[in-house]
Amino acid sequence: MSAQVRPRVGTMIGDPSGIGPEVVAKAWATGEVHAVSRPVLIGSADVMRQAVQIAGLGLQVRAVSDPREIADSPDILDVIDDRALRPEDILVAQDNLASGVAVGSWLGLADRLARRGDLDATIMGPVSASALKMAGALHKAVRVTPGETYLLLLTGPLRVLHLTDHVPLRQVCDTISADLVLDALTLLDRTFRQWGMPEPRIAVAGLNAHSDGIEDAEQIAPGVARARAAGIDATGPISPDTVFRRCIEQHYDVVLAMYHDQGHIAVKTWGFSGNCVVVLGLPYLHLSVAHGTAYDIAGKGVANHAMMLNAMKSAGAFCGGSGF
Amino acid sequence: MSAQVRPRVGTMIGDPSGIGPEVVAKAWATGEVHAVSRPVLIGSADVMRQAVQIAGLGLQVRAVSDPREIADSPDILDVIDDRALRPEDILVAQDNLASGVAVGSWLGLADRLARRGDLDATIMGPVSASALKMAGALHKAVRVTPGETYLLLLTGPLRVLHLTDHVPLRQVCDTISADLVLDALTLLDRTFRQWGMPEPRIAVAGLNAHSDGIEDAEQIAPGVARARAAGIDATGPISPDTVFRRCIEQHYDVVLAMYHDQGHIAVKTWGFSGNCVVVLGLPYLHLSVAHGTAYDIAGKGVANHAMMLNAMKSAGAFCGGSGF
Repeated sequence: MSAQVRPRVGTMIGDPSGIGPEVVAKAWATGEVHAVSRPVLIGSADVMRQAVQIAGLGLQVRAVSDPREIADSPDILDVIDDRALRPEDILVAQDNLASGVAVGSWLGLADRLARRGDLDATIMGPVSASALKMAGALHKAVRVTPGETYLLLLTGPLRVLHLTDHVPLRQVCDTISADLVLDALTLLDRTFRQWGMPEPRIAVAGLNAHSDGIEDAEQIAPGVARARAAGIDATGPISPDTVFRRCIEQHYDVVLAMYHDQGHIAVKTWGFSGNCVVVLGLPYLHLSVAHGTAYDIAGKGVANHAMMLNAMKSAGAFCGGSGF
Repeated sequence: MSAQVRPRVGTMIGDPSGIGPEVVAKAWATGEVHAVSRPVLIGSADVMRQAVQIAGLGLQVRAVSDPREIADSPDILDVIDDRALRPEDILVAQDNLASGVAVGSWLGLADRLARRGDLDATIMGPVSASALKMAGALHKAVRVTPGETYLLLLTGPLRVLHLTDHVPLRQVCDTISADLVLDALTLLDRTFRQWGMPEPRIAVAGLNAHSDGIEDAEQIAPGVARARAAGIDATGPISPDTVFRRCIEQHYDVVLAMYHDQGHIAVKTWGFSGNCVVVLGLPYLHLSVAHGTAYDIAGKGVANHAMMLNAMKSAGAFCGGSGF
């Protein structure tokens, strides 16, 4: 792809005390990210210099102030650095206030750049909820709100959009409505078409065991019917205990799950590798990696960059319409 | 094991119109069942003669009236036949009233034999809920009632006991209590010790996403604490989306799941092979196979008997204290 069409993807390097900066550097160095995007990092140039050393790479690190100034080269790590972290505050492998403050600032910066059109997509490297809490900045991480934003997990053929996320199970039953099901199906269908899948086959999980309950009949089924009437290839409600295996076996392209654990149990029990986390419903594409800061191995150069590479490549491919 | 200690296991052959009789005959013919049990069938001798032919086996079929009369030989299929099915009513590969009536009768017979001590365990071959409904006999199949009986799924290292089964999700939250958690943990711990695992490590799933909810703190945690105080190695509540993978990786021996789909999504998404279904809490051990009647292949001799063989061997091994 030419520079004109390759989307601009901004990756927030994650908590500077965790493995984020290392895996970002390793993923960048593969050269595979530039094939589908014009990447830029958001974080600390000093931290990235340290990460390049830890990872044993020969990359040059350069601070830029704008995504339009990037070198667009696999050999040069372009970092938009707002100086939110002082070099003397860099601490490896522990939760601390300075890291939390910096991550909060970088998350805000990434969001502003994307909202004003300077980035097509953002990626959140692994953060520490504890450090963000110390800084009072937990709200800077993208949150999922039913009816507005939806969490999509991607693991090979098993793709799952969640109708609700961190909603107490007691409230899930009251939150599910035909309108909400239709809204999610509409967004999911449109998104997958934009990403390059012309006719997404969507399986809709039921809420209750064997899809045999009031909500299945009175909310989910009518929501699916309305989506079908609008030309969306949605099927359901399907028994929640069989629908994910059916997707793995490629009878469907994606599952709409009703609540957090339905989808997360399926994805995490089946396997983690290549797992990628996307939020739909924002004005821009937002991804994160499924793993955490892994303090136990941070700074040792041994962290696996597969998930980060997958996220960086996927962001470019999705925005470019070549995601499948 | 000698005849004196090998447990008596009665297998109800399943719906005579489905693959049950075939897979029972194939499992019996392996000879592996007799190594750990004294098996007997409950059903129709005529159906089993037909099944032996369909499966291309050389077994002799013999009707007996009592589990004490069995030949105890892999070459002779002993069937306790109450004449509930007339030979002229045998229909392959379709739901019908006669099959439903017969299966209802056989389920009742198996239960009576076990309750009076003539069988140590019963196995239910694959039945058709539709045929049982036609006969008004659906209630004859073992049902799971919270606080009394519990469903245990076994698939290799992934073992899951369910605190609740076919309870609407809306009611699950109100059903979970510290008492119920303690009751299930006590039964599970005692059962696994009887089956031959001296120190079962039990993981307890939370109810809400990341075990972060009212029920997790106020009901599940106290239930686990009381179990631990009683000497049970229970841990939890653990985030439902990670606990099953932790069990697969053998950090735990079994998971106590809070509701049907928690456990069933994990087991069925991970994989079906060797899946075995057990009900705990009855006066005797009760197992069933996870597959159905498979009318599409019934009567063709091609049905796979792996799950039935696994159930028959497991029943003997569990009762004999050599289950792990």
